[in-house]
Order: sequence, then structure tokens, then C-alpha cells
Amino acid sequence: MDRLEAGEAVRRAVRTQGRRWSELAELLGRSVVWTTSALLGQQPLGREQAELVAKELSLGQEVVEGLCLPPVRGAAAVDRSEPVVYRLEEVVQVYGSAVAELVAEEFGDGIMSAIDFEMDLRRESDPKGDRVVLTLSGKFLPYRVW
Amino acid sequence: MDRLEAGEAVRRAVRTQGRRWSELAELLGRSVVWTTSALLGQQPLGREQAELVAKELSLGQEVVEGLCLPPVRGAAAVDRSEPVVYRLEEVVQVYGSAVAELVAEEFGDGIMSAIDFEMDLRRESDPKGDRVVLTLSGKFLPYRVW
Amino acid sequence: MDRLEAGEAVRRAVRTQGRRWSELAELLGRSVVWTTSALLGQQPLGREQAELVAKELSLGQEVVEGLCLPPVRGAAAVDRSEPVVYRLEEVVQVYGSAVAELVAEEFGDGIMSAIDFEMDLRRESDPKGDRVVLTLSGKFLPYRVW
Amino acid sequence: MDRLEAGEAVRRAVRTQGRRWSELAELLGRSVVWTTSALLGQQPLGREQAELVAKELSLGQEVVEGLCLPPVRGAAAVDRSEPVVYRLEEVVQVYGSAVAELVAEEFGDGIMSAIDFEMDLRRESDPKGDRVVLTLSGKFLPYRVW
Amino acid sequence: MDRLEAGEAVRRAVRTQGRRWSELAELLGRSVVWTTSALLGQQPLGREQAELVAKELSLGQEVVEGLCLPPVRGAAAVDRSEPVVYRLEEVVQVYGSAVAELVAEEFGDGIMSAIDFEMDLRRESDPKGDRVVLTLSGKFLPYRVW
Amino acid sequence: MDRLEAGEAVRRAVRTQGRRWSELAELLGRSVVWTTSALLGQQPLGREQAELVAKELSLGQEVVEGLCLPPVRGAAAVDRSEPVVYRLEEVVQVYGSAVAELVAEEFGDGIMSAIDFEMDLRRESDPKGDRVVLTLSGKFLPYRVW
Amino acid sequence: MDRLEAGEAVRRAVRTQGRRWSELAELLGRSVVWTTSALLGQQPLGREQAELVAKELSLGQEVVEGLCLPPVRGAAAVDRSEPVVYRLEEVVQVYGSAVAELVAEEFGDGIMSAIDFEMDLRRESDPKGDRVVLTLSGKFLPYRVW
Amino acid sequence: MDRLEAGEAVRRAVRTQGRRWSELAELLGRSVVWTTSALLGQQPLGREQAELVAKELSLGQEVVEGLCLPPVRGAAAVDRSEPVVYRLEEVVQVYGSAVAELVAEEFGDGIMSAIDFEMDLRRESDPKGDRVVLTLSGKFLPYRVW
Amino acid sequence: MDRLEAGEAVRRAVRTQGRRWSELAELLGRSVVWTTSALLGQQPLGREQAELVAKELSLGQEVVEGLCLPPVRGAAAVDRSEPVVYRLEEVVQVYGSAVAELVAEEFGDGIMSAIDFEMDLRRESDPKGDRVVLTLSGKFLPYRVW
Amino acid sequence: MDRLEAGEAVRRAVRTQGRRWSELAELLGRSVVWTTSALLGQQPLGREQAELVAKELSLGQEVVEGLCLPPVRGAAAVDRSEPVVYRLEEVVQVYGSAVAELVAEEFGDGIMSAIDFEMDLRRESDPKGDRVVLTLSGKFLPYRVW
Repeated sequence: MDRLEAGEAVRRAVRTQGRRWSELAELLGRSVVWTTSALLGQQPLGREQAELVAKELSLGQEVVEGLCLPPVRGAAAVDRSEPVVYRLEEVVQVYGSAVAELVAEEFGDGIMSAIDFEMDLRRESDPKGDRVVLTLSGKFLPYRVW
Repeated sequence: MDRLEAGEAVRRAVRTQGRRWSELAELLGRSVVWTTSALLGQQPLGREQAELVAKELSLGQEVVEGLCLPPVRGAAAVDRSEPVVYRLEEVVQVYGSAVAELVAEEFGDGIMSAIDFEMDLRRESDPKGDRVVLTLSGKFLPYRVW
Repeated sequence: MDRLEAGEAVRRAVRTQGRRWSELAELLGRSVVWTTSALLGQQPLGREQAELVAKELSLGQEVVEGLCLPPVRGAAAVDRSEPVVYRLEEVVQVYGSAVAELVAEEFGDGIMSAIDFEMDLRRESDPKGDRVVLTLSGKFLPYRVW
Repeated sequence: MDRLEAGEAVRRAVRTQGRRWSELAELLGRSVVWTTSALLGQQPLGREQAELVAKELSLGQEVVEGLCLPPVRGAAAVDRSEPVVYRLEEVVQVYGSAVAELVAEEFGDGIMSAIDFEMDLRRESDPKGDRVVLTLSGKFLPYRVW
Repeated sequence: MDRLEAGEAVRRAVRTQGRRWSELAELLGRSVVWTTSALLGQQPLGREQAELVAKELSLGQEVVEGLCLPPVRGAAAVDRSEPVVYRLEEVVQVYGSAVAELVAEEFGDGIMSAIDFEMDLRRESDPKGDRVVLTLSGKFLPYRVW
Repeated sequence: MDRLEAGEAVRRAVRTQGRRWSELAELLGRSVVWTTSALLGQQPLGREQAELVAKELSLGQEVVEGLCLPPVRGAAAVDRSEPVVYRLEEVVQVYGSAVAELVAEEFGDGIMSAIDFEMDLRRESDPKGDRVVLTLSGKFLPYRVW
Repeated sequence: MDRLEAGEAVRRAVRTQGRRWSELAELLGRSVVWTTSALLGQQPLGREQAELVAKELSLGQEVVEGLCLPPVRGAAAVDRSEPVVYRLEEVVQVYGSAVAELVAEEFGDGIMSAIDFEMDLRRESDPKGDRVVLTLSGKFLPYRVW
Repeated sequence: MDRLEAGEAVRRAVRTQGRRWSELAELLGRSVVWTTSALLGQQPLGREQAELVAKELSLGQEVVEGLCLPPVRGAAAVDRSEPVVYRLEEVVQVYGSAVAELVAEEFGDGIMSAIDFEMDLRRESDPKGDRVVLTLSGKFLPYRVW
Repeated sequence: MDRLEAGEAVRRAVRTQGRRWSELAELLGRSVVWTTSALLGQQPLGREQAELVAKELSLGQEVVEGLCLPPVRGAAAVDRSEPVVYRLEEVVQVYGSAVAELVAEEFGDGIMSAIDFEMDLRRESDPKGDRVVLTLSGKFLPYRVW
Repeated sequence: MDRLEAGEAVRRAVRTQGRRWSELAELLGRSVVWTTSALLGQQPLGREQAELVAKELSLGQEVVEGLCLPPVRGAAAVDRSEPVVYRLEEVVQVYGSAVAELVAEEFGDGIMSAIDFEMDLRRESDPKGDRVVLTLSGKFLPYRVW
């Protein structure tokens, strides 16, 4: 069982048992986005953490072993044509040039880190239809000049 | 002069003249992200708006004509391999599966709209290095069942 | 057994047993396009619905489990080079620009939703050869300006 | 001026002069989808038709020459990543397998033609938000067995 | 065993047992090209036909089941880089524009159908080396104007 | 003016002046498929031939120069997504495996040449709709064993 | 066991048992390049030949069956990014245009066959470092004019 | 005029003036393959060499300037789908695995250099049809172990 | 003149005038790798720097304007198939997994920055042939856990 | 078990048992980068070396067999979208043109070898955050002129 298969096992268990990712986040003492990302396979987990989750969801030892493997963060980590994900891709397509321009104006020559990075997802009530609100926070890193 | 060339002309003028996108946003009475995105070519502009900007930046009539063309929101709108933009791509790669999972848990079967959507970019002071904070807000749209 | 394999099992059963998708649609109280799409794996099914279908087609418990998994709506959901599907692709290729232009003229800046969306397929008798008639209905969503 | 450039010239004239495609359709005695598709470059136009349109929109002889060139129906005819067009692509992705299955069930082994084909686009009022309704009608063509 | 695997099983049996496709064509009462294409997996076969072939070649029931599955006509149906197939690709590359031009001149705006289509392959004796002669016959389909 | 532009110039002249490719074929003493292919740019033409055609169509010296350039037979020679050409591609996709199998059975290990090759296109009357008939003849070339 | 797997089995046996491809070539009475290519899966082998090799290398019957399957000469036959193979790719990239030009000058309009083709590989001693020498010999095939 | 355009100018002059590449090779005191490759743009030329060639072919100063630019050896240097070049590609596809295997057997772990490399092309008379013979000689480079 | 064209102009001047990049680096008071990268277009330059270089190389005002444009760091910045660059690509291919593993072992979960990054290139004398030595230094950035 | 699977087994053992790659390097008497690369599958290992490592990590005979297979150095050797690896890719993208230019200036027409190549990775203490330092050393190889 590789890391992504272990993630799939966790995901099935969460759905089948009617659990919420926030409960698992609380169990690990981490935010819900990080926890979900880690359990799906994109962040490293220690053995203790893996065992805590496996016990909570009554999953076997092979899932524990899978969860302890190094994270998978390459192209296999996501299906970019999946409709929810594609909307994020389209946001990058339509607003990416503006973001690059505004980062350059406000911070100078550099990037917003995707490593020293965190993200939050929350529901915002709206009479015209509730909204998904994502907050992305990444450290600004200036290009080195030497 | 097509829409993207007009956007490039605006961008050069902003940089050369030491202007800020927020001044142009104020001029148009819009947010700075929308304004930058529109002037770079990804949102529609009326003739009046185009002329206001062109006058402010001393740009000619062919830029006005270019800015009035329909927006360009396809793949040509952005270079996905540009380092700032690529970090956003990597965020989608690493956290996209978690976002899809959490939207499904919190809202049910549907997506976060990239159309009924807005985005904010701000600087957050941090003693360890200032941070770029992006806030994305998209209406949740449930899949229709019929 | 993953979601697409469960869909394949349903499809084989329908063909082998000489059943019609409309019977299954009736069983679920849904339209035939939605039902076919759901049973092939592109829409979510509840456990009750999955069991109803499995019983009707004498399929085992592993098909029920597969049908309860989240839907698969990424690129793996379809083979774009399959001749029936390719004709739809060609329709988008030849008429897509016109559709985009007419949506803009009639509705303004926005899109036709593929989420708040439904589709109908029917046979139209024609002395020169019967015709396939597809009706697509998607909510117009205007771009947000902020 | 090639065929697509001529189409772009027509499109700019329509937008700039505040004309509607339906007026041009009336002028040519054709449906509005066919007319828009033809003027954008995807259907053949005779010299008489090209001249009629050019006169109506006060466009020059080089546009007439461009409009008389053979239609462009290959991949260059559309930008598949443009947001309106992409939703049609996503419809094919999510519902294409169901369409193929239902065509096979209802008509037998064959396809829905994209050549002996017509399409209609109309606005449907809806209190929850107006809808774009596309009707696609293509002749069923059975595979030849020999 | 899926459709392509069943086709591979038939192909191995034909080669191993020193049979000829024309014998199987006679058995089915079809042309040799259609028969070969069907047995390799690109045309639909009825149960009776599948059983006839399986009996003739002493193949088991799982091959019969495989042959009864719907045909596979997408990109997986062929390896375009295989040398024999690539020559056909090159013919399309070198002569395709001429074919398109001549179809337009002789028949008007439309296509040569690949559905209402048949093909024959025969050997032509030639003192300088025998020739492969392929005859392709497809119904002309005019584009609909509406 | 490169070779393909010269071909485009010939094509426009043929269409505008209402000429037929067969007349040009007669002028050159070649078959119509070869002639069309050559004038569009895929076969070599001598200066004499180029001048003959240019004179017949009242085309200038730069077209003559262009026609004398080496032929263009790479991927640029054709748009594979053009509808007429795509049907040929689909024929290769659906029947290519059968052709490869039958060539192997009838001729042994080798290919049908695309170089020592000729092709004919003709119209076949048919009460159910006239047919396009293509005849491809390529020398069989056996693989060398050494 | 498919053809490529059988080739892999031969390759492992050769390496493990410290055998040389030239011994197998002698066994088959063929050149070493053809023999290696055939045993890896790119040339057809008769049953007798397959059995001879299997016996020599103490390989089982399933390898014999695999070696008797038709050759695999499509893209799967090689990994173009493998360093040895990539150098050949780079040779084509850097010298391919010159080869095409010189073939045209010396032989006229046509190609060097890859079918009526043979290749030899030998070691050339050189005080500055031994060299790999490949000799490729392909029949010139002129384009047919008709 | 960039390097490839300068190469195209040389090529046209050679063809138009009925010159042979071997004459130019003699002029430069280099082999014909290297010379052709250099003049087409894939090898560096000194100013003196460029002027010698330009004078010989009566080409202008802008060609000299172009020929002095650095060589172009990336993907733009060749059209891999051009028929002569494609046969070389197919040779790599069909025989590349065997070459890699034989280099490993004969020389050990390493590659045949494409840099310390030379190539010869000659015509070999053959009663069954003359042959193109290419000889490739590349230094063996062993992988460093450290 | 865009940024890459300005870089090409600088490069031609350096080569034509027999200058060295190290002289320009001294002029700007920067390292030679950064300077070359900046002048080719991948790092930002101030107006003063651009004018200094243009004066030194006798380049016109349009080059100055081009050099002042924002840097180009996307895929257009390099031709990955160019032989020198490809060797770097191959190094990533062959040693990339080891680097990732060793970074994880030595530093923990994170990356080596390509932004807070510098690189040096020097010649190392070696009796067996001089060596190119590249030293890459990037700050380790740990993944944020939250 | 193929070569990459054997590498994965070694990697798991190293992580699970809390071993360091440098211990294995010492065991083999090789550098740590080469050793890691070899054990992950990109360099050849002799049987003795494979057995030494397997014994040290208590891995079975099938891992030994896998480690003795030829190295895998093609595209499958690395996931280019993995974040650590991608930074190296981005370095090539941003600095590759400068490296090519500087190699040409300093060494002349040729490349930096990726075969006669070695690499070192070390940690550099830095009060602003430790740095990853990679040193790449490749022999310069001049293009042969003949």
C-alpha cells in the first residue's frame, strides 16, 4: 500500500463512517487543511500520528505503514481536470498575471512561497448563496542578487 | 493592437512612470485586483473606463481601442511556468485534493465558482519576513440533480 | 473495485440482461441522462440508490460499495477520441466560438454553468433519417465585478 | 487578411457599432448560430453574402476577400481554455460517456453527426436566474457493416 | 478479459493455428477487413458470432464474453507509431490537404464519412514488387446550412 | 514567400477563378491527386512546371519562386483536426490494426510504402448518396533480415 | 508473458549468465544487431529460433511463447530519454537536416528506407579513447510520381 | 536574419544555382556532412568561413552576419516529422534498445558521444537499388564513479 | 523590442566585439553568472544599469528600453533541447531523486530555494581534460506545519 | 521486482530503520550522492555491492536481484513535478541560457558532460538559514570538427 492508497483508505473511512476532517485535525492538534492534506498524502506524518488516526478510524496496520511513507507532492497528487480543482486552475489562469504584477509592485522582485505557506478554508454565509473562502498566506521571498 | 498588447502597454506605462495599480483602481472605482486583471486584459472594460486610464497614463487611442476589446481569459492569459504563477500552480497541486475534499464535506456535491468570484491580495507584516496574503471568495454552486 | 469499475459492471449488466437505462432512471426517480451518468460514475449515489440498482441487476455487494464512492469527473471520465464523443468535441471546435459570442451578446460577461446544468437526449423522427437531439440547459453566471 | 482575421474584423464591428448577430442573420436569411459561426470563420460564405455583410457593417474589400476564403474548422477555430468554451468541454467530459451509451441503446451502433447538424441557442427565463439553452440536433449515422 | 484482450487472444490463435482471417470472414459472412477489425475489437459482435468464432478457434467462454463487449474505437484501438500504421499516418500528412481540397471541389462543403464507410485490402501483382491496394469508400455528407 | 504560402496562393486563385484542379493536372500531364498535392506544396515542382501553372493562373514571379522550393511534408503539411482530414485519422484509428494484421498475413513481415505510393480519388454515384472513393496503392516492402 | 517481457527475460539471462549477444547471433545464424533487436522484441522469430535460444539460456516455455509473438516496433519499443538512446536522438536533431539535404542532392526526391535496412555496430580502437561506430545502410526509395 | 534564416538562404542558393554541397565543403576544407550541417545552422562558423561561402554563392552581408551567429542545435534544428528524418527516428525506435544493450556489453556503463562525434554519408551501388550508407562514429564515454 | 530581443542584441554585441561577460559583470559590480543571466533577460535591471551596459557596447536606446522591462523567467527563457542545457536536464533526471532524498535526510521536510539562490561557474584544470564546475547554493526552506 | 522497486525497498528500509545514506556510502566505499543514486536505481551495482547493502538493511534476495538489474536513467527515474526536483528544473529554466553562454565563452564550442560527471551535496551553515550547496563537476567536451 503506497502513500496515495493509504490516503484513499482514510478518505473512504471518513465518508463511510460519517466522520469529519475537523475531528481528525483536533486529534492531531493541527489545522483542518493541513490535516486533510497530510492524510490524503501530501504532508509527512510521524508513526505516532499515523497510529492515532488509524485507531480512530479502525484502519489496519498496512494503512499505518502507508501513512508513514514520504509525502507525494508531484503531479500525481491531484487530478487537475477534476471540476473543483479546475476552478482553482482557472483562477490562476485568469488572475495569475495580476497577482504576479501586484506582488512585484508591493514587495519587489521575488515570489510568494508555496513552502512557507499555509491555507485556510471557511464557509461564509451569504443570502445570495454561501461562499467558499480560501485564505492563502505565503512568505515573500526576494530573489538573491549577487 | 490586440487586448494583450494593450495590457502590456499599460503595464509598461505603470512601471516607467512609477505609478501604482491602486491609483488606477481608485480612478475606476474598483478593487485593485480586478483593476489590474482588467487592465492586463482579463476583464471587460467600457470605453469610458479605457479612456480614463489612457488619459491618466498618456497612452494613445490605439491603446483605448485595444482595451475595449473582449477580455482574454484562455491559456494565453498567463504563463504558467513564470515563477510567481508556478507557486500558485504548486499550491493547487499540493493542496487541491484537500480543498476538493473539504468543499465536499462542508457544502456537499458542487464547486467553488471561479466566475462569481473575487480575490484580494494584501501584505501582512511578520517579523520573520512579510507575507503575501491572498483571499479567494467564490460562491458555492451545487450540482443540479434532475 | 473503484467507481469506474462499478460503472463498467452496471453497463455490462444492462447490456447482457437487455435492460434499458430508462428503467433504472424510473427506479431512482431521476432523468435518464442523470441516471446513466451517475451509474457510469459521474454523479454521486447514496447507499440506498446503489443498493436499489444492484438488487435490480443482481449485482454483488462490491458493486454497491463502488457505486457509493465519490464521482469521477476528471479526464478519466471519458475517452475523447471515441467516435461518438469526438463528434461532440468537434461541435465545440466548430461552434464554440459562436456560442461564446452569442452568450456574451445575449447575457453579458459570464458563462453557461456546467454545474447548475441539465441535459436531455431524445430521438426525433425524420424521413431522411432519425436525429439525435440533445438539449443542454445551464444557468447563466455573470462574472463578479468588485 | 486570412479567414479568422476577417472574422475578428466582423466581430469588432458588431461590438463597436452595437449591432446584433441576429440582424446579420436576418440579412443572410440564415439562423443566428449558423450566421455567427460563418462570420467568425467556420462556415463557407459566397461572395454575395460576404459583400452584403461588409456593406452593412461598412467594412472594406479586404474583409470581403477574407470572408470568401474556405472555412477554418480545425483546432485553430476555438480556444478550448476560454471559460465559456471550457464549460462545454467539461460537459463533454462529465456527460460524454452517458451520451455515447444512450445513443447506442436508442439508435444502435453509430454516431450523432456533427456535419448534418444544427444548433440553436436561446435564453430561458428563470426566477432563480435565466438559463442558456442549447439544442443540438444531429442525424444518426449507423456504422456500415459489409 | 476486456474487449482488446479478447481480440489479442483471437489474434494469437489465428497465428498459432496457422489460420487465415478470410476463413473467419467466411464463417461470419462478412468481408475480411470488417471481420478482422471486429475480431480485434473495433466492431460490435453478437453473441452468436462470438461463439461461432470461439468454437472455430477452440477459445474459451471468457473470450466469448470479451468479444460481446462494446467495440473499442478510441485512441487505444491502435498504436500510431507502429511502422505499418505510421505509413498510413504519413499518407494523411502528405496527401490529406489534397484530399480535403478535392472533396471540396468535387462534392462541395462536407466530408467523407468514416462511419458509412467500408474498406477493402487486396494484393496487386507487380513485376517490380507486389503492391498493397486499399480502397476506401465513404459516403459524402454535406454540412447542413440552416 | 515560402512553399506553403505559394500553395495557398494557388489555392485561392483556383477558387477565385473558378478553375478545377483537373485542368492543372492536364497542364502538367500528371494525375489530379499528385498535381493538387504538388501545388499545395507536398511534391517537388520543376521551374518549368511552376511557370506553366503561374502563367495559367496569372500568378506572379514570387509564386513561381515559392513553388520551386523543396516540398513540405512534415506535420505542417496538414491540419489533422480539420474535419475532412480527421475522418481519415479516424479511419486509421479504427481500421489501422486490421490493416497491419492483414498486411502481415498476406505479405509477411513488412510495410505498405508511403513513398512508392499513389492515390486516386473519385466520385461514385449511389442512390443513397454519392460516395468518395479513395484508392491507395503502395509497394510492399519486406523487412530486411541480416 | 508478452513480447517485451520475453525480451526482458532474455536480457536478464544474458547478463546473469555472463553470455554475449554474439553467441546467440551465431546460434541463429544472423548478425548481432538483428539478433539482439529480435530477442529484445523488435523482429519476428520463428518457433524454432525461439526454442533454440530458450534452450541455450535455460528459459521456460512461456518465454518461447512470448518470443513467438509479433514484434513490437511502436513507441513502446524504446525509452527515448534513456541516455544512450537520447544521444542518437540528438544526432538526428543536430544532423537530420543535413542528411535530408544530402540525400536529396545525391539521390533525388525520396528517402532512405528504415525497412530495407541493416545496421552494424563495432568498436574502433583509438588512442584518445575507443569509439562506437554504427553503420546504417538503407535502400534509397524514390517518391512515385504519377 | 537569424541563423536558421541564413541557412535557408544558403540552401536556396545551392539549389537555384545548381551547386553541390561537396564544392562548399572543399571550399571550407571540411567534410561534406559537417559543412552542410554548419551552413544549415548547426555548427559554428567563423567570419572568414562565412564570407568565403557568401562570396562563392553571391549572397549579401546579412547572410554573412547570420552565419556568424551561434549554432542552433535545439528542437528547432529539425522537423522530426519530415519523411527522411522520420525514418531515422524510426531506426532509433526499432533498433535503439539493441544499440544500448550492445554498447553496454561491449564497452561497459556509458554512452556513445554525440559531441565527440562524426558522421559520413555515401552512396552504395546495388543492383537491387542503390543504398544510402551512414557511418556514425562517437567516442565511448564511461559513467564516472566516485 | 522585448526583453529577450534586447538580451539577444547584447549577446550579439558581446560576441561580435570580442567582449567577455566578466567585463560587464565588473561594470555592474555583480557576479558573472547573475550579470549574464540579467543581460540575457532573466533578472531585473535598473535604468542606470541598462544605460551603462548599452554605452559600453554602443547599443541604442531601444535596447536600453528593452533591458528595463521585467525579467522573463518562464519556459521561454531557455531551450531545454539545446545540447548544453539538455545535459543539465539529464543531470536532474539521473540525480534528482538522490538530491531530493538527501535534502530530506539532512535538512528535513522542505526544499532548496531557487529564489534565495546563487550559482557560480568556474573552470577547473584537469590533465584528463578541463572541467566545468557549477556551484549552486540555495537556502533550505522547511514546509510550514500549522 | 524491477530496479526502481528495489530502490524503493532500500529507501523504505533506510527511513524505517533510521539509517543514513552516508553509512551505506561508507559501506560501499563511494561518495554519498553516487551511492544514493545507485541504490535508488540510477547507477549500476555489482552483485557483491547489492548483497552488502541487503545484508546491512536486512533485505531479502529479491531486492538483491532487483539491485543487480541495469540502471534506470530515463524519464521514469524522477518525477519532475516533485517540489525539490522542480526547483532544480526552475534553476535550469532561469539560469540555463547563462550557463550555455558562459561555457561557450570560457571553453569554446562544446558541452559540460553529464556522464564524466560528479556531484556533491553539503550543508552550509548560515545565520539567516542554512543552505543546500550542490557542486556539479562535468568534463568539458568540445564538438568534433571534421
